[in-house]
Amino acid sequence: MSNAILLVHCPDQPGLVATVAAWIQRHRGNIVDLEQHVDAASDTFVLRAEWTLDGFALGRDDIGATFAREVGDAHAMGSEVYFTDERPRVALFVSRLSHCLYDLLSRVDAGELPMDVPVIVSNHDRLRPVADRFGIPYAHIPVTRQTKSVAEADQQRLLADHGVELVVLARYMQILSDGFVDRWQQQIINIHHSFLPAFAGARPYHRAFERGVKIVGATSHYVTADLDEGPIIAQDVVHVSHRDTVDDLVRKGRDTEKLVLARAVRAHIERRVLVVDGRTTVFG
Amino acid sequence: MSNAILLVHCPDQPGLVATVAAWIQRHRGNIVDLEQHVDAASDTFVLRAEWTLDGFALGRDDIGATFAREVGDAHAMGSEVYFTDERPRVALFVSRLSHCLYDLLSRVDAGELPMDVPVIVSNHDRLRPVADRFGIPYAHIPVTRQTKSVAEADQQRLLADHGVELVVLARYMQILSDGFVDRWQQQIINIHHSFLPAFAGARPYHRAFERGVKIVGATSHYVTADLDEGPIIAQDVVHVSHRDTVDDLVRKGRDTEKLVLARAVRAHIERRVLVVDGRTTVFG
Amino acid sequence: MSNAILLVHCPDQPGLVATVAAWIQRHRGNIVDLEQHVDAASDTFVLRAEWTLDGFALGRDDIGATFAREVGDAHAMGSEVYFTDERPRVALFVSRLSHCLYDLLSRVDAGELPMDVPVIVSNHDRLRPVADRFGIPYAHIPVTRQTKSVAEADQQRLLADHGVELVVLARYMQILSDGFVDRWQQQIINIHHSFLPAFAGARPYHRAFERGVKIVGATSHYVTADLDEGPIIAQDVVHVSHRDTVDDLVRKGRDTEKLVLARAVRAHIERRVLVVDGRTTVFG
Amino acid sequence: MSNAILLVHCPDQPGLVATVAAWIQRHRGNIVDLEQHVDAASDTFVLRAEWTLDGFALGRDDIGATFAREVGDAHAMGSEVYFTDERPRVALFVSRLSHCLYDLLSRVDAGELPMDVPVIVSNHDRLRPVADRFGIPYAHIPVTRQTKSVAEADQQRLLADHGVELVVLARYMQILSDGFVDRWQQQIINIHHSFLPAFAGARPYHRAFERGVKIVGATSHYVTADLDEGPIIAQDVVHVSHRDTVDDLVRKGRDTEKLVLARAVRAHIERRVLVVDGRTTVFG
Repeated sequence: MSNAILLVHCPDQPGLVATVAAWIQRHRGNIVDLEQHVDAASDTFVLRAEWTLDGFALGRDDIGATFAREVGDAHAMGSEVYFTDERPRVALFVSRLSHCLYDLLSRVDAGELPMDVPVIVSNHDRLRPVADRFGIPYAHIPVTRQTKSVAEADQQRLLADHGVELVVLARYMQILSDGFVDRWQQQIINIHHSFLPAFAGARPYHRAFERGVKIVGATSHYVTADLDEGPIIAQDVVHVSHRDTVDDLVRKGRDTEKLVLARAVRAHIERRVLVVDGRTTVFG
Repeated sequence: MSNAILLVHCPDQPGLVATVAAWIQRHRGNIVDLEQHVDAASDTFVLRAEWTLDGFALGRDDIGATFAREVGDAHAMGSEVYFTDERPRVALFVSRLSHCLYDLLSRVDAGELPMDVPVIVSNHDRLRPVADRFGIPYAHIPVTRQTKSVAEADQQRLLADHGVELVVLARYMQILSDGFVDRWQQQIINIHHSFLPAFAGARPYHRAFERGVKIVGATSHYVTADLDEGPIIAQDVVHVSHRDTVDDLVRKGRDTEKLVLARAVRAHIERRVLVVDGRTTVFG
Repeated sequence: MSNAILLVHCPDQPGLVATVAAWIQRHRGNIVDLEQHVDAASDTFVLRAEWTLDGFALGRDDIGATFAREVGDAHAMGSEVYFTDERPRVALFVSRLSHCLYDLLSRVDAGELPMDVPVIVSNHDRLRPVADRFGIPYAHIPVTRQTKSVAEADQQRLLADHGVELVVLARYMQILSDGFVDRWQQQIINIHHSFLPAFAGARPYHRAFERGVKIVGATSHYVTADLDEGPIIAQDVVHVSHRDTVDDLVRKGRDTEKLVLARAVRAHIERRVLVVDGRTTVFG
Repeated sequence: MSNAILLVHCPDQPGLVATVAAWIQRHRGNIVDLEQHVDAASDTFVLRAEWTLDGFALGRDDIGATFAREVGDAHAMGSEVYFTDERPRVALFVSRLSHCLYDLLSRVDAGELPMDVPVIVSNHDRLRPVADRFGIPYAHIPVTRQTKSVAEADQQRLLADHGVELVVLARYMQILSDGFVDRWQQQIINIHHSFLPAFAGARPYHRAFERGVKIVGATSHYVTADLDEGPIIAQDVVHVSHRDTVDDLVRKGRDTEKLVLARAVRAHIERRVLVVDGRTTVFG
């Protein structure tokens, strides 16, 4: 039971929903889910439609080009086509903390996240035992100020070799260069351990403690050249109190980090995320 | 800036979204919001579409009949048409507690809930001062086992006189007769002070305390002949601890009751609720 | 059934709990609640004890001085004594928005917040009808850059005349002068419409929308000379999505503002808040 | 840095806090945390105190008996003494689902839960690979109606052999006999996949879907002879909508199950839980 997914965005104008829905119907697609939205700030129309491939008149490889020719080009649409039976290949980048790594791997193992993890990359050797437990290659690529460009070249080669299409920074504590980020636009998801824009940058839990906040949070976002400024995919928080030390904030925050990162990765691989104007549309 | 709202439900079949969207477009409606859903359990298709009336080819009074004739009848659709500039007339039923009453009235007063409250009905005289503060007629209709049918006849007459189309039980502690409920199907919204189906019936906070739960909640639902069994529109909870007495549960629960009831009333008057098979679809 | 409340803070040292508890017991007080905490960052001991006055050996007016002489002075303790049957006199400052004002007044009216509101102060005349509804004097004191010091003198006089001991800024959109704030240290509670430290300053919902956050929040804090930097008493958030416009954020945020402000005011008047080092201890 | 923990419960009477605190001080213990509570429904006093062992006048093995002799016996106190450097030995019972198992093991591995897991017990062979990954013995003990008593005898022997003091049912889908439960009173923690008392018993997510609830939850409780009726330690919920299928409820609920079970296990091994009258006190 495989479905096609169409993501569309373009300047808003009347009749777009009907036009797209009619195109799918004309080629004998049965729409099982359709959601659309107009971003009022930028007057941008976004739509996500999912229909059954069974009985559809076009072959998989023809869908994208045919849609563009018959509908998209006339409305200056950006469009992308995906299929629900594709399993994206996802690289996990980590440093010293294991909680997000364990969480993602156990979800993949339980069949909860339909993706493959061909490689784990780290600037430390510390989490190799976790990778070993799951039988996944672990690439230890140390990064210093001096070796950064060489290290990133190694990382890029590794991603290419493993056919990776999404990079998840699962508490990876190095800043990627602008060149790296440009190469992987909207294909790198980070988890930041604060409710952005509060406490962007280093040591957010320490600063949260010093400020005396009553909630701490986590934010998952696409990585852009501006640190911690990329489009937010998911956020959540947990309540804390005066009884909590910095260590308690760290511990409680971890649960939120795990949940928020998993939620963002799931939304991405289910092709429910579109970025417009630096903000995400995350379809239901 | 007034929009039309169309709510549709029918047995699922291919092409329904495209059919409805094309109909709106053909009559020169510009869709600003469309959401659809297929309830897998009952194989029912539900859709909510909203489009601008400005430039629309059909007059308000013709929309419903024209849609039924041109689209709905052929697909066994149930359909309803509303307009965003309509202000529903809503009666509030209360007993002794003021928090939900104050909350709804202050939201109406602040322009947050686009509805009118022509009358407040109560089986006690206690909350008359609140009604007076807002200049709303207050009908004190005592209810006993013996007088119930007479009392309900009085209530019905009052609702008719005031042109009421929605009854909100804002902590009204009397059970309405089956006859009353039948007359107002999906037009009576209740707030129950527990997270149903837990603690249906009387004294839910006391029973929650005795059971030692760590959360208490509130549930807003349409009233049906089966007490506390009607379709749920909104629910929420609040955390409690061993430090909380029954009185604390009552107090903390009130905040949840207020929020949940207001959320349900808003969803209803924005025509975002459809009932299928005893369960609600509450569109985004 | 009236209880005494003792709040204590001092540099930490061994035996403080036992010392304070023994003092209460020696004077025949029956402790009904005792909570203590050591702030690890500043090594400060804080304690809140509540005991029954019935049978207590000391008169109300002697408790504070006797405790200081017999215990507090020897340990460099700051201490305060309150009684649960005191009803603090609280002034509400508002501008144009009614939701926090309505919420607080309806809680007082329902007996949920044990305090009196002798006066409502505003820089606009707009919310006078709300004050009238509750029969509370409404002082319209316009504030401009030029008239600010005169206006604040008027406000101060009014607070003195009404015997006010706590000022609640219930969406009051003027910045109080340093002199005013100094005069009312830890006696002014503000509600800011963001999860501080994110979006301090003006128009937080607009900036939240532009940043594309997935949660918005509210923060209640004591007012200090540094705008939006005072000790945080309560915070909460609500989830939002790409479907929400700025107006939706404003509306959803209001519910959080009401809850958070009410929670902070309650904590203050129940004498459960202590400020140490710019951070609050809010006892259970 | 090891601390002693004292848990006390007894009928309430004046002076208990002072008495306990004075006893700790007299033996030169420095209290770092003390929390007390009076359960109003049963008039029971409960207290948890934690003090530094460094400099304490009594040896570890003497603390319990000395306290009982000098304080506890005179007040009919139940008391327990623990030490923060003890690592409890915990057996995990599982069936087919891996999420709670992975979650607990990864927390232990990351040093987040200070406990040891000497054995994993299951009525299926399915999760053996997970146990292997963590190098933990996996005992496959099938259970049928006929073999139950034999199987439980095997389980009991295994627990004894491994020096287990706490059993965690991490989605173990068999009902333990009354005899087993009696043997391990307040030493078996279960996770039930609903917000009890709603949907006690089998297939809670299916029943939640059929009822059309807008929240699903999870409950962690001590196991008693009455199924799903034991004292609740922790509960939480997650919001769902009409878009969610039963499978979605199951998936979303899993995240809550993991969190709630981990929270309950943590509270237990930190000796923060006391059961009074079928309800838990869970100290901060």
